[in-house]
Amino acid sequence: MQELEYSKEIKKELLKEGIKIGERIRVIKNKIILEGILLPKGEFGDKNSIVLKLDSGYNIGIKYENGVKIEKAKTSEPKKIKTETEIELGKIKEKFLESLKWDETKPKISLIATGGTIASRVDYKTGGVYMIMKPEEFLYNIPELRNIIKIQRIINPFNKASEDMDVNDWKIIAKNVANELNKSEGVIITHGTDTLHFTSAALSFMLRKKSENWDEKHSVSKPVVLVGAQRSSDRGSSDTAMNLICSSYLAISDIANIGICMHGSESDDFCYFIRGTKVRKMHTSRRDAFKPINEFPIAKIWNNGKIEILNKNINKRTNEKVIADLKFNDKIAILKAYPGSEPKLIKFLIKNDYQGIIIEGTGLGHVPIFAKKSWTNEIKNACESGVFIGITSQTIFGRVNKYVYRNLRILSKLGAVHLEDMLTEVAYIKLGYILGHTKKLEKIKSVMLTNISNEITERSVGGFIE
Amino acid sequence: MQELEYSKEIKKELLKEGIKIGERIRVIKNKIILEGILLPKGEFGDKNSIVLKLDSGYNIGIKYENGVKIEKAKTSEPKKIKTETEIELGKIKEKFLESLKWDETKPKISLIATGGTIASRVDYKTGGVYMIMKPEEFLYNIPELRNIIKIQRIINPFNKASEDMDVNDWKIIAKNVANELNKSEGVIITHGTDTLHFTSAALSFMLRKKSENWDEKHSVSKPVVLVGAQRSSDRGSSDTAMNLICSSYLAISDIANIGICMHGSESDDFCYFIRGTKVRKMHTSRRDAFKPINEFPIAKIWNNGKIEILNKNINKRTNEKVIADLKFNDKIAILKAYPGSEPKLIKFLIKNDYQGIIIEGTGLGHVPIFAKKSWTNEIKNACESGVFIGITSQTIFGRVNKYVYRNLRILSKLGAVHLEDMLTEVAYIKLGYILGHTKKLEKIKSVMLTNISNEITERSVGGFIE
Repeated sequence: MQELEYSKEIKKELLKEGIKIGERIRVIKNKIILEGILLPKGEFGDKNSIVLKLDSGYNIGIKYENGVKIEKAKTSEPKKIKTETEIELGKIKEKFLESLKWDETKPKISLIATGGTIASRVDYKTGGVYMIMKPEEFLYNIPELRNIIKIQRIINPFNKASEDMDVNDWKIIAKNVANELNKSEGVIITHGTDTLHFTSAALSFMLRKKSENWDEKHSVSKPVVLVGAQRSSDRGSSDTAMNLICSSYLAISDIANIGICMHGSESDDFCYFIRGTKVRKMHTSRRDAFKPINEFPIAKIWNNGKIEILNKNINKRTNEKVIADLKFNDKIAILKAYPGSEPKLIKFLIKNDYQGIIIEGTGLGHVPIFAKKSWTNEIKNACESGVFIGITSQTIFGRVNKYVYRNLRILSKLGAVHLEDMLTEVAYIKLGYILGHTKKLEKIKSVMLTNISNEITERSVGGFIE
Repeated sequence: MQELEYSKEIKKELLKEGIKIGERIRVIKNKIILEGILLPKGEFGDKNSIVLKLDSGYNIGIKYENGVKIEKAKTSEPKKIKTETEIELGKIKEKFLESLKWDETKPKISLIATGGTIASRVDYKTGGVYMIMKPEEFLYNIPELRNIIKIQRIINPFNKASEDMDVNDWKIIAKNVANELNKSEGVIITHGTDTLHFTSAALSFMLRKKSENWDEKHSVSKPVVLVGAQRSSDRGSSDTAMNLICSSYLAISDIANIGICMHGSESDDFCYFIRGTKVRKMHTSRRDAFKPINEFPIAKIWNNGKIEILNKNINKRTNEKVIADLKFNDKIAILKAYPGSEPKLIKFLIKNDYQGIIIEGTGLGHVPIFAKKSWTNEIKNACESGVFIGITSQTIFGRVNKYVYRNLRILSKLGAVHLEDMLTEVAYIKLGYILGHTKKLEKIKSVMLTNISNEITERSVGGFIE
């Protein structure tokens, strides 16, 4: 576990004292004695600072320098007599507990907690990250929420790492959102970040106002805010607090859209609210990992509640009932086309009853055509047997095109449908949603190219890589 | 072909005159008569400008405004008497022809032309883009090259759209590069952009100095510059000229690395030279579509030949012989893991003799573990049967990790190898290269995690999405 190792100096001292990670130790610095459990170095922490879990529950980093002494604690139990620091921290905790009494005058929102880093903590022994089972725990750490909202209900249908979720989880979330949205000012969903953008896309198709049709442009009447964290809440660098504060401001705002609210930059200065169908996790670990693709973020939200609208294509809050349409056919798949890629995977999927495939092509939406392993026959066969073949681009940014090059025109002629500037993940989920409603290939094609939930933009804009 | 349509006003006028795309017409504006073939509107051109192919071979855009007259040409043949504009253009062409005589005092480079947009032109009738068969054609358009280099040899092993290339093409290119590199100052490869970054990665593994080993850090002794174009050379917005000019400066520079040289911004101000193993096409159509991932570009190159080194991890030019090691096993594949993804594809690939699979996981390198369609068993079976399973991230930016979360540790215990900050495409090609040299799983694992050609960086840095 190289990343979590302390500096040579600290390791030498620990070895000398026979101290191991997870043991109770005392650190003496400037006459202050701190006692607690020795944690591994934080993933992003300073190699030369000892991290202690104090009895108050708080972690503290102590710079290891001349004059600092490390020793085994005399007892394995927390001391009875508290240090000055602990008394100070105790006072802060009391103040926090106070704040748990919600202010009844604040707008009521519902929170759906599903798991993920935002609801996780570091295990002191292994350095790994584990789920916390009580979603209240992260609220307890953010007293500021009390000044913004009243969380009237926390629904916790399951606790899952988001990489383990699938359409059944999206359905449970969608059902709960529709239910709660009709009884509150807005809904916040806490969720793991890995597939947060898949869930936001699924909700964007499954949820709509009662008066709207499944195959036409649809929307919700109140804010639906999905939020996660890239660093767990017991880490100093956690993004949990600001993400939840900004999400709370959004949940009671007039922006009646479904989107993801996460850090907008690496600093703790603002969050972006990014449309659920135009967003993607673009970094394994940065706090600003979620980026809008091919359009501007809906809004920029500061810690203090200021909201700046960046995209005029938004809906206003109304009181219309929202319904969850859970018809979904999960016999869908994504395949990537690249040099040497195996077109027979299409045949295998069809043999296994798959009814629609999104091919993530290269550039403007290409697959190998005049190549040794040409995709031509397999795509032709798929289209002729009524399987929908959609084409997106693995460049992520930009828009596919069925005209510009000869190979594109061939692909289009075979029956494959180039899906404008839709993200691969969004096209995949939209396809499952459409297949849940119709089996008619012409209808599937037409709805795939209809802009139902702002998944297609007329003109791609927004940020790019600097 | 909506994108290529003229404005309503022009269409109305054309209809009135009974003129169709591809016909010979006359446009009269300010007493100047221009005659030529009517082209469709350029992809990025002004809707309200008529595009004519003049008899000189040049395209001209004429703003359609009050006083402009369009009519059918009287003859279907080029006129004998030239207009003033045509005479002017003829003079320019003569000057161009002059420049085709290379300056013998300039450093000698070889050019390998493989096809792609950089060697393509718009078909006047359909508006589609076709290959030009003579690679000299693009040089003919860029007289500036004469002041930089002497192209001693143009090798044209094939003309392919890059989406149709595979490992056999990489081998042909690698062989030619090694051959030419030993007889020149540097090599330029013109190539389609869709899979340019696959080829640059393949060359980075296949080429090395004669004294170096296949399974250790290796390098080349002179510059190997891959270049493409996002817009064909007969378009006003073409990036061909600047990309080739900057590539020429690089080919004679002291930077003995393999990389891609393309526009660094949307303007015609500079190019970036980006390492062949740390680069990806990130936009379907922007001229600055190629971006460095997880490290800084090697250098910034201006039109005037100024080169600014941005990354100190480069090699100096030497005279050591470069060899092409073409051992490659193409029974390799990329699979994407996502909610609802089909783990049985692994079994199918193994049944079809695939010997290595790169799984593009979510976030820090996850696949569904505690999910209905868990990947656990299939990965376990693959690893136990000696098939290499590598894990990268579909976030593209960042680094996978085998420790932080429980699911990561499970995946790692099954035998899957998390591949640091390697790009999926690069990991795929590196795997084929390694499998071409050894069948021993432990050796494969160890070389996959060895930094052979700067495909792994110790600390990910560089640009991100703004």
